[in-house]
Amino acid sequence: MSHHWYDAPIAAPDAAVRAAACDRQAQLTKPPGSLGRLEELGIALAAMQGTQQPRVDKVWITVFAGDHGVVAEGVSAFPQVVTAEMVRNFARGGAAISVLARTWDARLEVVNVGTVQPLEELPGVLDARVGPGSANFVREPAMTGDQLHEALMAGHDAAERAAINGARLFVGGEMGIGNTTSATAIACSLLGLPAAQLAGPGTGLDPAGISHKALVIERALARHRSDQPLAALQRLGGFEIAALAGAYLRCGQLGLPALVDGFITTAAALAAVRLRPDLAPWLFYAHCSAEPGHRRLLDALDAKPLLELGMRLGEGSGAAVAVPILRAAAALHAGMATFAEAGVSQA
Amino acid sequence: MSHHWYDAPIAAPDAAVRAAACDRQAQLTKPPGSLGRLEELGIALAAMQGTQQPRVDKVWITVFAGDHGVVAEGVSAFPQVVTAEMVRNFARGGAAISVLARTWDARLEVVNVGTVQPLEELPGVLDARVGPGSANFVREPAMTGDQLHEALMAGHDAAERAAINGARLFVGGEMGIGNTTSATAIACSLLGLPAAQLAGPGTGLDPAGISHKALVIERALARHRSDQPLAALQRLGGFEIAALAGAYLRCGQLGLPALVDGFITTAAALAAVRLRPDLAPWLFYAHCSAEPGHRRLLDALDAKPLLELGMRLGEGSGAAVAVPILRAAAALHAGMATFAEAGVSQA
Repeated sequence: MSHHWYDAPIAAPDAAVRAAACDRQAQLTKPPGSLGRLEELGIALAAMQGTQQPRVDKVWITVFAGDHGVVAEGVSAFPQVVTAEMVRNFARGGAAISVLARTWDARLEVVNVGTVQPLEELPGVLDARVGPGSANFVREPAMTGDQLHEALMAGHDAAERAAINGARLFVGGEMGIGNTTSATAIACSLLGLPAAQLAGPGTGLDPAGISHKALVIERALARHRSDQPLAALQRLGGFEIAALAGAYLRCGQLGLPALVDGFITTAAALAAVRLRPDLAPWLFYAHCSAEPGHRRLLDALDAKPLLELGMRLGEGSGAAVAVPILRAAAALHAGMATFAEAGVSQA
Repeated sequence: MSHHWYDAPIAAPDAAVRAAACDRQAQLTKPPGSLGRLEELGIALAAMQGTQQPRVDKVWITVFAGDHGVVAEGVSAFPQVVTAEMVRNFARGGAAISVLARTWDARLEVVNVGTVQPLEELPGVLDARVGPGSANFVREPAMTGDQLHEALMAGHDAAERAAINGARLFVGGEMGIGNTTSATAIACSLLGLPAAQLAGPGTGLDPAGISHKALVIERALARHRSDQPLAALQRLGGFEIAALAGAYLRCGQLGLPALVDGFITTAAALAAVRLRPDLAPWLFYAHCSAEPGHRRLLDALDAKPLLELGMRLGEGSGAAVAVPILRAAAALHAGMATFAEAGVSQA
């Protein structure tokens, strides 16, 4: 049996640092528990980063872009050309994720894992095309085994670049017309659910469009369904979804916390966690999106998202909006005075 | 009938700018509605600031501190001396709100509107003591009419300082041992609710403590209940709660958006909005706190909080954690490219 990079075990966050972090939270100048979830987030970040001075100051965002053969089945409200057009918009700084990256001073890169056409050279866009879009998975597997490993490796490499550049948090995003269809198919495959339970409007299908999308996915599931994460990614994936799974897995191996965005990234996280359950403690979940199936995916991962603002854009935008919550939790854990330091009386 | 500064009408946010902002949101490079609540927040900020380039870059935080005579009834888990101790902690930068203000580069000031003892001079702390703590409102009105107007004016002046210093968002916070009891009494008085429906643990009462607190509030309501906001503030208030109400009212008059924090600040906002309903469009609500009565207050104000992280600290800390959400909404509205600018195809 061949050994792959993602088969290596993932170490847990530091238990001793975690215990000391719990002690520290109890000593900070506030009623116990009064920072709510920020206390647990601060403790988790301390344990992940191995310090009582956790920081979320250097944030790395990689948006993986890829096209989907399944759009031939009429599953998206937007034309396929928008994938490439939006990559150009990322590069010029006009997209939501571009604006948010600037606002928080985060590093943004785009990795093209498979637009239908090759793209011209663009600033901040890496060419890692695995193929000219995935195949139409209603008819055949979305990608070959080699393509799957290339896509996973594109994610691996992005996490490596983040770590080498000193990132303290990795955010993965995605762009790919048709990719809620792929994400829904992967999630249904892994969770053993019928398509109708997870299919939603994506970028804006009407109810008839959603029904059609569910039928398309059901046909694909009838052909390809598997509860094995690599098989599900290969047969039903997009390249960008496989890349996200690879990125999360490498983040865990590197001890780099990752913040999962919305529906599509959560489907990638689900595949990654099914492959390596020891990845789970390295993932934060940013928000519960308006895509109706997202809640089911989060529940399957036992994930408590930080925000619920009705967002459903992708690109990593929901994660980018949630970055400051992790930043605040780290700053509070690191920077608040203890009762003893401040000379404040306790209850 | 004498005329007070807070009787002046409050102008609505700019309707023409709002209409143009709605048009702009529909042109930005994203599926319509896909930014969820961030779209409405961006539109609201544009209308408030009168520009399609809204910004939440200069944030002003005023924490009002005051003591409460009602602590003589044994309603708090912490001793009264903590109010002054925490003011010193704010001044030295060790409190949660100090850390968050630094993290977002916000300006933080503390206004002492009534600690029991005068405080030594402290950096960043203004002395505006209205009295040596409020009176025990179970036995007598919490403050005189003159004290109420002094406290409201302390808030007025804070909002003025924020505006003069170019703030684009005002955050009010509070510190005062016993002030959930005062806030609960004010809210019950204005909403016509029995104390048992709103009384909660505050900084950490056990169930027996909560029952006792509810009984104390019920005795005060039997003596003082009023559905008039100024009467409720005077009879049941804390100085810092009245100051917050004054600050919000002045923010509205100045056209300065304000972000309301948790349970106590929401009680102040309720009093202010009852006094001047035209204040309502100038207030954002940061979070739904763990204090169980907060949801009822938010519902009474028809307010949709931005966050729900189980926080219950006060100091303005919940609002400070939510500041980046408004900052993101403004940045996205101002900075995203339109479909035409980016050459992206529409659905």
